[in-house]
Amino acid sequence: MNHPDLPWQLSERARALTSSAIREILKVTERPEVISFAGGLPSPDGFPVEVIEAAFSDVLQSRGKAALQYGPTEGYAPLRAWVAQHLSDQGAHVTPEEVLIVSGSQQALDLLGKVLVDPGSKVLVETPSYLGALQSFSLYEPSFACVPSDGHGLIPEALTPSLTNGARFLYALPNFQNPTGRTLPLARREALVEIAARQGFPIIEDDPYGELRYRGAALPGLLGLGEKSGATVIRLGSFSKVLAPGLRLGYMVAPEKLIAKLAQAKQATDLHTGSLTQMAVFEIVQSGFLERHLPEIRALYRHQCDSMLAALDLYFPKEAEWTRPDGGMFIWVTLPEGIDATDLLADALAKNVAFVPGAPFYALNGPRNTLRLSFVTVPEERIRLGIERLAELVRQRMAEKLARAA
Amino acid sequence: MNHPDLPWQLSERARALTSSAIREILKVTERPEVISFAGGLPSPDGFPVEVIEAAFSDVLQSRGKAALQYGPTEGYAPLRAWVAQHLSDQGAHVTPEEVLIVSGSQQALDLLGKVLVDPGSKVLVETPSYLGALQSFSLYEPSFACVPSDGHGLIPEALTPSLTNGARFLYALPNFQNPTGRTLPLARREALVEIAARQGFPIIEDDPYGELRYRGAALPGLLGLGEKSGATVIRLGSFSKVLAPGLRLGYMVAPEKLIAKLAQAKQATDLHTGSLTQMAVFEIVQSGFLERHLPEIRALYRHQCDSMLAALDLYFPKEAEWTRPDGGMFIWVTLPEGIDATDLLADALAKNVAFVPGAPFYALNGPRNTLRLSFVTVPEERIRLGIERLAELVRQRMAEKLARAA
Repeated sequence: MNHPDLPWQLSERARALTSSAIREILKVTERPEVISFAGGLPSPDGFPVEVIEAAFSDVLQSRGKAALQYGPTEGYAPLRAWVAQHLSDQGAHVTPEEVLIVSGSQQALDLLGKVLVDPGSKVLVETPSYLGALQSFSLYEPSFACVPSDGHGLIPEALTPSLTNGARFLYALPNFQNPTGRTLPLARREALVEIAARQGFPIIEDDPYGELRYRGAALPGLLGLGEKSGATVIRLGSFSKVLAPGLRLGYMVAPEKLIAKLAQAKQATDLHTGSLTQMAVFEIVQSGFLERHLPEIRALYRHQCDSMLAALDLYFPKEAEWTRPDGGMFIWVTLPEGIDATDLLADALAKNVAFVPGAPFYALNGPRNTLRLSFVTVPEERIRLGIERLAELVRQRMAEKLARAA
Repeated sequence: MNHPDLPWQLSERARALTSSAIREILKVTERPEVISFAGGLPSPDGFPVEVIEAAFSDVLQSRGKAALQYGPTEGYAPLRAWVAQHLSDQGAHVTPEEVLIVSGSQQALDLLGKVLVDPGSKVLVETPSYLGALQSFSLYEPSFACVPSDGHGLIPEALTPSLTNGARFLYALPNFQNPTGRTLPLARREALVEIAARQGFPIIEDDPYGELRYRGAALPGLLGLGEKSGATVIRLGSFSKVLAPGLRLGYMVAPEKLIAKLAQAKQATDLHTGSLTQMAVFEIVQSGFLERHLPEIRALYRHQCDSMLAALDLYFPKEAEWTRPDGGMFIWVTLPEGIDATDLLADALAKNVAFVPGAPFYALNGPRNTLRLSFVTVPEERIRLGIERLAELVRQRMAEKLARAA
């Protein structure tokens, strides 16, 4: 609906735009008494403040004028080369020309929507998927098609030719997915890239959490597997989870011809990503800092995750189910059927506990009895307390349901 | 045209996207022997490197974890408040809630295109206009309508109801416009906002150069004038020209309801602008640094501008015309009729002089005999030399034309 009382006319896409459910919840959870499992924030305890300060100072002192000038849209050349080498070390073959530096990997999603999606274009997403990606793509008015998924992620066999026909791309988070925390097993990764190669659709592999694996061995990424099978894989990465999100720095890897088009779109979008930030982050990563830093972050996150799993095991009714992630930031809970997570949230907020209901993570209609818990920023004692309160509310709802049924 | 050999399908808008003419020229001009008037870069001599370093260090030392965390999409609250106060001091009435912090004012253009433009929407632009804005808006497939303009900018009387009917907005740069360097006189500003109020179209006032006035008295902005007449004015500002562009920081002022929509679009676009950069820039501007710094920048730019004007007066044939800007970075040259600036550029590059032909700055067809000169980054002696070489080429073309006519 247009607003006849407003002195401007919104575009169709702007009228369809609604505030994110998470955003609205987060506003409530800023009160210090709230135990919030709703956020998607990394733990500030993991931010290497001193290292970052030293890098900014050094860049400004030694190359200040260059760092403060406009820079190339594609990104700071040494950082592009570092990304290419870093991914090549993990088993793909990436050249610097295949790397575009972006203002946080959220921007990569926006650019991909701009460049690959027309109104009505089919876009394949996991069930459920990352809400921020659904929002980015939605601005370009695609027609979402959901790939059937289970506790191990998307089911490759479900990618029938009729489902994938005409799809502009499939968007997937293979490692410790946001929101579910689940990881796509190797056999499914291999099957996925083979199907993508055969049926001719590109894959967007979003991997913000891949470096945050705290259990089990790393699995090959879709980018490297795609090379072998002939699939086109566009890979997104971020410095938000391995360094700090307030820097707003990420990258995208794609075939050179597509990078050229994405760079044109980026030029029209924000000219380029801040030179100073790129140079400072390059200084940090090329020094080998991440190799020393990441084990600390992983240990921190594993401890937080284990605290929440222990609390869930202790307090939650056995009729509920939850994922046991090998990395990342999120646990996904499936409540007993018939309990609506959005209703539960209202009760929980009254008891100063917050989480995100699962429904907004489904591109199309999804079940109402799921929810996402973030475990990274809440101290251990408060995790226990928050989960205990939540469990109590779930049991109440179950009892009410039983009473109604009787 | 789609590329049948590529394993992806580009969106309509991506297919229409072409590399900017300026971008292609700038690639050539990176050779040190080239005297380049083609750039749009501010002078690095004006970057307050030490002040910026001190601010980043102080923020990281005192509030490092907050500066490195995700932040609100609307921007860092104290910086929003500073912008509101700063514009209020200049005669408008702006509240912090009417301010959205953006990743460079180029991003404001993208967000406005997203939120206000549908395919085929009428968008009014000056003749000529800022190329980066034309590119941003183009991604949302508007139908451009050009407002007739002369040496003093757009002609308000030309804004007939039939021209403005259905326009989503009028985009204008009233101060030292890019590309022409011209400034809209007060009477035209007043007439413009009255017509906008009466005919009901919003104005986007883009003002990256307003603080760089080095001659004459400042004129009231459209934002403040619009308040009096009841026009809706969206104001864009930037820290790129008063501090440094490599920070990628700007802002947008609009009615609160529109800011809410723009913030939703920004959330889907890049979540938010870097917290660290916002906090550091706030520290700099709230200390009153700009009041000490801007006079230096203005003196520097005036000197550069005067050097180029003197060289043009000395060397250029009287049959050519050029603007005499009161601020900003650009001079606009109109060559004698029949001399094509794009052809001239090929000759000029062969003599190691670069500029930008005027044609790409026209949303629709424009004259071929105009060009833009940037005077800010070239040392005085090389300005003289470059203008002398250009003048020689223009005279050659004039002589050839005469010979052909004879």
